[in-house]
Amino acid sequence: MSASVTGPEIERLIQLLAKLPGLGPRSARRAALDLIKKKDELLVPLSGAMDVAIEAIVVCSTCANIDTSDPCTICTDPRRDDTTIVVVEDVADLWALERAAIINARYHVLGGALSPLDGIGPDDLGITGLVARVTDGGVREIILAVNATVEGQTTAHFIADQLAGLDIKVSRLAHGVPVGGELDYLDEGTLSAAIKSRRPF
Amino acid sequence: MSASVTGPEIERLIQLLAKLPGLGPRSARRAALDLIKKKDELLVPLSGAMDVAIEAIVVCSTCANIDTSDPCTICTDPRRDDTTIVVVEDVADLWALERAAIINARYHVLGGALSPLDGIGPDDLGITGLVARVTDGGVREIILAVNATVEGQTTAHFIADQLAGLDIKVSRLAHGVPVGGELDYLDEGTLSAAIKSRRPF
Repeated sequence: MSASVTGPEIERLIQLLAKLPGLGPRSARRAALDLIKKKDELLVPLSGAMDVAIEAIVVCSTCANIDTSDPCTICTDPRRDDTTIVVVEDVADLWALERAAIINARYHVLGGALSPLDGIGPDDLGITGLVARVTDGGVREIILAVNATVEGQTTAHFIADQLAGLDIKVSRLAHGVPVGGELDYLDEGTLSAAIKSRRPF
Repeated sequence: MSASVTGPEIERLIQLLAKLPGLGPRSARRAALDLIKKKDELLVPLSGAMDVAIEAIVVCSTCANIDTSDPCTICTDPRRDDTTIVVVEDVADLWALERAAIINARYHVLGGALSPLDGIGPDDLGITGLVARVTDGGVREIILAVNATVEGQTTAHFIADQLAGLDIKVSRLAHGVPVGGELDYLDEGTLSAAIKSRRPF
Protein backbone atom coordinates (compact mmCIF):
# COMPACT_ATOMS: atom_id res chain seq x y z
CA MET A 1 0.00 0.00 0.00
CA SER A 2 1.52 3.30 -1.01
CA ALA A 3 1.30 6.11 1.50
CA SER A 4 -0.64 8.17 -1.01
CA VAL A 5 -3.60 5.81 -0.83
CA THR A 6 -4.26 5.84 2.89
CA GLY A 7 -2.48 8.91 4.12
CA PRO A 8 0.60 9.02 6.37
CA GLU A 9 -1.42 8.71 9.61
CA ILE A 10 -2.63 5.16 8.91
CA GLU A 11 0.74 4.23 7.43
CA ARG A 12 2.50 5.33 10.63
CA LEU A 13 0.06 3.36 12.78
CA ILE A 14 0.73 0.24 10.68
CA GLN A 15 4.51 0.73 10.89
CA LEU A 16 4.43 1.03 14.68
CA LEU A 17 2.06 -1.92 15.13
CA ALA A 18 4.41 -4.02 12.96
CA LYS A 19 7.11 -3.52 15.62
CA LEU A 20 5.07 -5.47 18.19
CA PRO A 21 6.28 -9.02 18.71
CA GLY A 22 3.94 -11.43 16.96
CA LEU A 23 2.76 -8.94 14.32
CA GLY A 24 4.34 -8.81 10.86
CA PRO A 25 3.70 -6.15 8.20
CA ARG A 26 0.59 -7.94 6.93
CA SER A 27 -0.97 -8.64 10.31
CA ALA A 28 -0.11 -5.10 11.45
CA ARG A 29 -2.14 -3.80 8.51
CA ARG A 30 -5.05 -6.03 9.52
CA ALA A 31 -4.70 -4.91 13.13
CA ALA A 32 -4.65 -1.22 12.12
CA LEU A 33 -7.75 -1.67 10.01
CA ASP A 34 -9.49 -3.48 12.82
CA LEU A 35 -8.54 -0.72 15.28
CA ILE A 36 -9.90 1.94 12.95
CA LYS A 37 -13.13 0.04 12.34
CA LYS A 38 -13.63 -0.57 16.05
CA LYS A 39 -12.72 2.98 16.96
CA ASP A 40 -14.92 3.34 20.04
CA GLU A 41 -14.70 -0.25 21.29
CA LEU A 42 -10.98 -0.80 20.72
CA LEU A 43 -8.88 2.09 19.38
CA VAL A 44 -9.96 4.70 21.94
CA PRO A 45 -9.73 2.36 24.99
CA LEU A 46 -6.38 0.92 23.85
CA SER A 47 -4.91 4.37 23.32
CA GLY A 48 -6.21 5.32 26.76
CA ALA A 49 -4.73 2.21 28.38
CA MET A 50 -1.39 3.07 26.77
CA ASP A 51 -1.52 6.60 28.12
CA VAL A 52 -2.22 5.18 31.59
CA ALA A 53 0.70 2.77 31.17
CA ILE A 54 3.02 5.59 30.06
CA GLU A 55 2.16 7.57 33.16
CA ALA A 56 1.87 4.81 35.72
CA ILE A 57 4.36 2.07 34.98
CA VAL A 58 7.72 2.02 36.70
CA VAL A 59 10.57 -0.44 37.11
CA CYS A 60 10.95 -1.70 40.69
CA SER A 61 14.27 -0.43 42.06
CA THR A 62 14.59 -3.53 44.22
CA CYS A 63 13.86 -6.43 41.86
CA ALA A 64 13.46 -4.75 38.42
CA ASN A 65 9.91 -6.07 38.07
CA ILE A 66 7.56 -3.86 36.05
CA ASP A 67 4.67 -2.47 38.05
CA THR A 68 2.81 0.71 38.93
CA SER A 69 4.53 1.15 42.26
CA ASP A 70 8.18 1.17 43.35
CA PRO A 71 8.92 -1.03 45.26
CA CYS A 72 6.59 -3.35 43.33
CA THR A 73 3.58 -5.30 44.59
CA ILE A 74 5.64 -8.44 45.03
CA CYS A 75 8.48 -6.72 46.92
CA THR A 76 5.99 -5.06 49.32
CA ASP A 77 3.72 -8.11 49.77
CA PRO A 78 4.05 -9.04 53.47
CA ARG A 79 2.83 -12.61 52.83
CA ARG A 80 5.82 -13.53 50.70
CA ASP A 81 8.79 -15.54 51.90
CA ASP A 82 11.70 -13.13 52.41
CA THR A 83 14.26 -15.90 52.63
CA THR A 84 14.02 -17.02 48.99
CA ILE A 85 14.78 -15.02 45.85
CA VAL A 86 13.89 -16.46 42.44
CA VAL A 87 16.27 -15.05 39.82
CA VAL A 88 14.77 -14.72 36.32
CA GLU A 89 16.08 -13.25 33.08
CA ASP A 90 12.98 -11.34 32.14
CA VAL A 91 9.74 -9.95 33.58
CA ALA A 92 7.91 -12.39 31.26
CA ASP A 93 9.54 -15.27 33.16
CA LEU A 94 8.39 -13.77 36.46
CA TRP A 95 4.85 -13.54 35.07
CA ALA A 96 5.04 -17.17 33.88
CA LEU A 97 6.07 -18.35 37.36
CA GLU A 98 3.38 -16.22 38.99
CA ARG A 99 0.74 -17.63 36.65
CA ALA A 100 1.79 -21.11 37.69
CA ALA A 101 1.47 -19.90 41.32
CA ILE A 102 3.98 -22.43 42.58
CA ILE A 103 6.26 -20.33 44.74
CA ASN A 104 5.50 -17.50 47.12
CA ALA A 105 8.98 -15.97 47.21
CA ARG A 106 10.58 -12.71 46.15
CA TYR A 107 12.04 -12.21 42.67
CA HIS A 108 15.03 -10.63 41.02
CA VAL A 109 14.82 -9.74 37.33
CA LEU A 110 18.21 -9.69 35.61
CA GLY A 111 17.04 -8.01 32.42
CA GLY A 112 18.67 -10.59 30.15
CA ALA A 113 21.48 -13.11 30.15
CA LEU A 114 25.24 -12.87 29.67
CA SER A 115 25.96 -12.83 25.95
CA PRO A 116 29.41 -11.61 24.89
CA LEU A 117 28.36 -11.78 21.21
CA ASP A 118 25.54 -9.30 21.87
CA GLY A 119 27.79 -7.20 24.09
CA ILE A 120 25.85 -8.07 27.26
CA GLY A 121 28.24 -8.30 30.20
CA PRO A 122 27.70 -8.61 33.98
CA ASP A 123 27.33 -4.85 34.36
CA ASP A 124 24.35 -4.83 31.99
CA LEU A 125 22.40 -7.23 34.21
CA GLY A 126 21.06 -6.70 37.72
CA ILE A 127 23.69 -8.97 39.29
CA THR A 128 25.26 -6.36 41.59
CA GLY A 129 21.82 -5.57 42.96
CA LEU A 130 21.18 -9.25 43.59
CA VAL A 131 24.47 -9.69 45.48
CA ALA A 132 23.62 -6.57 47.51
CA ARG A 133 20.20 -8.00 48.42
CA VAL A 134 21.87 -11.21 49.60
CA THR A 135 24.61 -9.49 51.61
CA ASP A 136 21.94 -7.29 53.24
CA GLY A 137 20.95 -10.49 55.03
CA GLY A 138 17.81 -12.53 55.54
CA VAL A 139 18.08 -14.49 52.28
CA ARG A 140 18.67 -18.21 52.64
CA GLU A 141 18.12 -19.52 49.10
CA ILE A 142 18.64 -18.22 45.57
CA ILE A 143 16.75 -20.18 42.89
CA LEU A 144 18.34 -19.55 39.49
CA ALA A 145 15.26 -19.80 37.25
CA VAL A 146 17.11 -18.77 34.10
CA ASN A 147 16.51 -20.21 30.64
CA ALA A 148 18.05 -23.58 29.78
CA THR A 149 20.08 -21.91 27.03
CA VAL A 150 23.85 -21.48 26.79
CA GLU A 151 23.47 -17.81 27.78
CA GLY A 152 21.14 -18.62 30.65
CA GLN A 153 23.39 -21.33 32.03
CA THR A 154 26.49 -19.14 31.66
CA THR A 155 24.65 -16.46 33.61
CA ALA A 156 23.68 -18.99 36.29
CA HIS A 157 27.30 -20.08 36.68
CA PHE A 158 28.47 -16.47 36.87
CA ILE A 159 25.92 -15.62 39.56
CA ALA A 160 26.74 -18.77 41.53
CA ASP A 161 30.41 -17.68 41.48
CA GLN A 162 29.48 -14.21 42.73
CA LEU A 163 27.49 -15.72 45.59
CA ALA A 164 30.18 -18.24 46.55
CA GLY A 165 31.39 -17.70 50.10
CA LEU A 166 28.07 -16.26 51.26
CA ASP A 167 26.18 -18.60 53.53
CA ILE A 168 23.21 -19.32 51.22
CA LYS A 169 21.88 -22.20 49.20
CA VAL A 170 21.99 -21.68 45.42
CA SER A 171 19.70 -23.95 43.40
CA ARG A 172 18.61 -24.23 39.78
CA LEU A 173 15.50 -25.56 38.01
CA ALA A 174 15.37 -29.30 37.33
CA HIS A 175 15.94 -30.49 33.77
CA GLY A 176 13.75 -33.28 32.43
CA VAL A 177 10.83 -34.30 30.26
CA PRO A 178 8.21 -31.51 30.11
CA VAL A 179 4.83 -32.59 31.53
CA GLY A 180 2.78 -33.78 28.56
CA GLY A 181 5.95 -34.09 26.45
CA GLU A 182 6.52 -37.01 24.11
CA LEU A 183 9.98 -38.57 24.28
CA ASP A 184 10.11 -38.93 20.52
CA TYR A 185 10.11 -35.15 20.10
CA LEU A 186 12.69 -34.31 22.77
CA ASP A 187 16.31 -33.47 22.12
CA GLU A 188 19.13 -35.69 23.36
CA GLY A 189 20.22 -33.21 26.03
CA THR A 190 16.78 -33.26 27.66
CA LEU A 191 16.53 -37.04 27.46
CA SER A 192 20.02 -37.42 28.90
CA ALA A 193 19.15 -35.03 31.78
CA ALA A 194 15.88 -36.87 32.41
CA ILE A 195 17.66 -40.21 32.64
CA LYS A 196 20.47 -38.86 34.84
CA SER A 197 18.02 -37.20 37.25
CA ARG A 198 15.63 -40.18 37.31
CA ARG A 199 13.54 -40.56 40.46
CA PRO A 200 12.21 -43.66 42.25
CA PHE A 201 8.74 -44.61 40.97
CA MET B 1 -1.04 -13.81 35.78
CA SER B 2 -3.26 -12.57 38.56
CA ALA B 3 -4.13 -8.90 38.50
CA SER B 4 -2.63 -8.51 41.95
CA VAL B 5 0.86 -9.19 40.60
CA THR B 6 1.08 -6.57 37.88
CA GLY B 7 -1.62 -4.11 38.74
CA PRO B 8 -4.82 -3.42 36.78
CA GLU B 9 -3.19 -0.96 34.37
CA ILE B 10 -0.96 -3.58 32.72
CA GLU B 11 -3.75 -6.15 32.88
CA ARG B 12 -6.08 -3.81 30.98
CA LEU B 13 -3.42 -3.11 28.34
CA ILE B 14 -2.95 -6.85 27.85
CA GLN B 15 -6.70 -7.47 27.59
CA LEU B 16 -7.12 -4.79 24.93
CA LEU B 17 -4.08 -5.91 22.94
CA ALA B 18 -5.48 -9.47 22.96
CA LYS B 19 -8.48 -8.18 20.97
CA LEU B 20 -6.26 -7.31 18.00
CA PRO B 21 -6.45 -9.83 15.18
CA GLY B 22 -3.32 -11.98 15.20
CA LEU B 23 -2.64 -11.59 18.92
CA GLY B 24 -3.81 -14.18 21.45
CA PRO B 25 -3.67 -13.83 25.25
CA ARG B 26 -0.06 -15.02 25.41
CA SER B 27 1.28 -12.89 22.56
CA ALA B 28 -0.69 -9.91 23.90
CA ARG B 29 1.18 -10.30 27.17
CA ARG B 30 4.49 -10.39 25.30
CA ALA B 31 3.45 -7.36 23.25
CA ALA B 32 2.44 -5.42 26.40
CA LEU B 33 5.76 -6.22 28.04
CA ASP B 34 7.62 -5.17 24.91
CA LEU B 35 5.66 -1.91 24.76
CA ILE B 36 6.45 -1.15 28.39
CA LYS B 37 10.12 -1.96 27.99
CA LYS B 38 10.37 0.15 24.85
CA LYS B 39 8.38 2.99 26.35
CA ASP B 40 10.06 5.85 24.50
CA GLU B 41 10.74 4.06 21.20
CA LEU B 42 7.43 2.24 20.86
CA LEU B 43 4.74 2.81 23.51
CA VAL B 44 4.74 6.62 23.40
CA PRO B 45 4.87 6.86 19.55
CA LEU B 46 2.21 4.16 19.12
CA SER B 47 -0.11 5.83 21.60
CA GLY B 48 0.48 9.10 19.74
CA ALA B 49 -0.22 7.51 16.36
CA MET B 50 -3.46 6.13 17.77
CA ASP B 51 -4.50 9.55 19.04
CA VAL B 52 -3.80 10.98 15.58
CA ALA B 53 -5.85 8.16 14.03
CA ILE B 54 -8.74 8.76 16.43
CA GLU B 55 -8.80 12.43 15.47
CA ALA B 56 -8.04 12.21 11.78
CA ILE B 57 -9.54 9.09 10.30
CA VAL B 58 -12.90 9.23 8.59
CA VAL B 59 -14.96 6.94 6.36
CA CYS B 60 -15.34 8.29 2.81
CA SER B 61 -19.02 9.14 2.23
CA THR B 62 -18.65 8.28 -1.46
CA CYS B 63 -16.87 4.90 -1.47
CA ALA B 64 -16.61 3.96 2.27
CA ASN B 65 -12.81 3.80 2.06
CA ILE B 66 -11.01 4.70 5.30
CA ASP B 67 -8.85 7.81 5.00
CA THR B 68 -8.07 11.13 6.62
CA SER B 69 -10.19 13.13 4.20
CA ASP B 70 -13.79 12.82 2.99
CA PRO B 71 -14.08 12.31 0.03
CA CYS B 72 -10.99 10.07 0.26
CA THR B 73 -7.70 10.38 -1.62
CA ILE B 74 -8.82 7.88 -4.24
CA CYS B 75 -12.20 9.53 -4.85
CA THR B 76 -10.53 12.93 -5.30
CA ASP B 77 -7.56 11.75 -7.37
CA PRO B 78 -7.98 13.41 -10.80
CA ARG B 79 -5.73 10.83 -12.48
CA ARG B 80 -8.10 7.93 -11.82
CA ASP B 81 -10.48 6.47 -14.38
CA ASP B 82 -14.00 7.68 -13.53
CA THR B 83 -15.67 5.15 -15.78
CA THR B 84 -14.73 2.07 -13.75
CA ILE B 85 -15.70 1.20 -10.16
CA VAL B 86 -14.10 -1.78 -8.44
CA VAL B 87 -16.50 -3.17 -5.82
CA VAL B 88 -14.80 -4.80 -2.81
CA GLU B 89 -16.13 -6.26 0.42
CA ASP B 90 -13.61 -4.67 2.74
CA VAL B 91 -11.08 -1.83 2.93
CA ALA B 92 -8.39 -4.52 3.30
CA ASP B 93 -9.32 -5.77 -0.20
CA LEU B 94 -9.00 -2.24 -1.57
CA TRP B 95 -5.55 -1.98 0.02
CA ALA B 96 -4.56 -5.36 -1.47
CA LEU B 97 -5.57 -4.23 -4.97
CA GLU B 98 -3.79 -0.89 -4.49
CA ARG B 99 -0.62 -2.68 -3.36
CA ALA B 100 -0.73 -4.73 -6.53
CA ALA B 101 -1.15 -1.42 -8.44
CA ILE B 102 -2.97 -3.09 -11.30
CA ILE B 103 -5.95 -0.84 -11.81
CA ASN B 104 -6.31 2.91 -11.68
CA ALA B 105 -10.06 3.06 -11.14
CA ARG B 106 -12.42 4.21 -8.39
CA TYR B 107 -13.58 1.86 -5.64
CA HIS B 108 -16.72 1.07 -3.69
CA VAL B 109 -16.37 -0.66 -0.33
CA LEU B 110 -19.45 -2.71 0.61
CA GLY B 111 -18.46 -3.30 4.22
CA GLY B 112 -19.04 -7.05 4.05
CA ALA B 113 -20.98 -9.62 2.08
CA LEU B 114 -24.58 -10.84 2.18
CA SER B 115 -24.89 -13.42 4.91
CA PRO B 116 -28.42 -14.26 6.14
CA LEU B 117 -26.98 -16.49 8.87
CA ASP B 118 -25.06 -13.53 10.32
CA GLY B 119 -28.04 -11.24 9.76
CA ILE B 120 -26.28 -9.21 7.05
CA GLY B 121 -28.79 -8.15 4.41
CA PRO B 122 -28.60 -5.74 1.44
CA ASP B 123 -29.37 -2.73 3.66
CA ASP B 124 -26.28 -3.41 5.79
CA LEU B 125 -23.99 -3.10 2.76
CA GLY B 126 -23.24 -0.06 0.64
CA ILE B 127 -25.25 -1.35 -2.32
CA THR B 128 -27.74 1.54 -2.55
CA GLY B 129 -24.84 3.98 -2.67
CA LEU B 130 -23.24 1.97 -5.45
CA VAL B 131 -26.41 1.97 -7.53
CA ALA B 132 -26.73 5.73 -6.94
CA ARG B 133 -23.16 6.30 -8.16
CA VAL B 134 -23.94 4.33 -11.33
CA THR B 135 -27.25 6.09 -12.03
CA ASP B 136 -25.51 9.44 -11.53
CA GLY B 137 -23.82 8.60 -14.86
CA GLY B 138 -20.30 8.41 -16.18
CA VAL B 139 -19.68 4.83 -15.04
CA ARG B 140 -19.20 2.29 -17.80
CA GLU B 141 -17.93 -0.78 -15.92
CA ILE B 142 -18.42 -2.31 -12.47
CA ILE B 143 -15.80 -4.90 -11.54
CA LEU B 144 -17.14 -7.14 -8.75
CA ALA B 145 -13.90 -7.90 -6.88
CA VAL B 146 -15.62 -9.77 -4.04
CA ASN B 147 -14.28 -12.86 -2.34
CA ALA B 148 -14.68 -16.22 -4.07
CA THR B 149 -16.80 -17.43 -1.15
CA VAL B 150 -20.49 -18.36 -1.12
CA GLU B 151 -21.29 -15.03 0.58
CA GLY B 152 -19.12 -13.05 -1.85
CA GLN B 153 -20.63 -14.69 -4.91
CA THR B 154 -24.18 -14.28 -3.54
CA THR B 155 -23.41 -10.60 -3.06
CA ALA B 156 -22.04 -10.35 -6.61
CA HIS B 157 -25.21 -11.87 -8.03
CA PHE B 158 -27.39 -9.55 -5.95
CA ILE B 159 -25.48 -6.47 -7.14
CA ALA B 160 -25.55 -7.63 -10.76
CA ASP B 161 -29.36 -7.94 -10.43
CA GLN B 162 -29.60 -4.42 -9.00
CA LEU B 163 -27.59 -3.04 -11.90
CA ALA B 164 -29.51 -4.96 -14.58
CA GLY B 165 -31.20 -2.58 -17.02
CA LEU B 166 -28.55 0.11 -16.58
CA ASP B 167 -26.31 0.48 -19.61
CA ILE B 168 -23.07 -0.68 -17.99
CA LYS B 169 -20.75 -3.65 -18.17
CA VAL B 170 -20.60 -5.78 -14.99
CA SER B 171 -17.56 -8.05 -14.72
CA ARG B 172 -16.10 -10.31 -12.06
CA LEU B 173 -12.56 -11.51 -11.26
CA ALA B 174 -11.28 -14.53 -13.19
CA HIS B 175 -11.12 -17.85 -11.36
CA GLY B 176 -8.11 -20.09 -11.96
CA VAL B 177 -4.80 -21.39 -10.70
CA PRO B 178 -3.10 -18.80 -8.45
CA VAL B 179 0.27 -17.66 -9.82
CA GLY B 180 2.87 -19.86 -8.15
CA GLY B 181 0.18 -22.36 -7.18
CA GLU B 182 0.70 -26.11 -7.41
CA LEU B 183 -2.16 -28.07 -8.96
CA ASP B 184 -1.79 -30.83 -6.41
CA TYR B 185 -2.83 -28.47 -3.61
CA LEU B 186 -5.80 -26.87 -5.36
CA ASP B 187 -9.42 -27.72 -4.74
CA GLU B 188 -11.60 -29.23 -7.46
CA GLY B 189 -13.63 -26.06 -7.96
CA THR B 190 -10.52 -24.05 -8.79
CA LEU B 191 -9.15 -26.72 -11.11
CA SER B 192 -12.52 -27.02 -12.83
CA ALA B 193 -12.68 -23.22 -13.30
CA ALA B 194 -9.10 -23.16 -14.60
CA ILE B 195 -9.87 -25.83 -17.19
CA LYS B 196 -13.16 -24.25 -18.28
CA SER B 197 -11.55 -20.82 -18.68
CA ARG B 198 -8.43 -22.17 -20.40
CA ARG B 199 -6.67 -19.77 -22.76
CA PRO B 200 -4.71 -20.38 -26.00
CA PHE B 201 -1.01 -20.91 -25.27
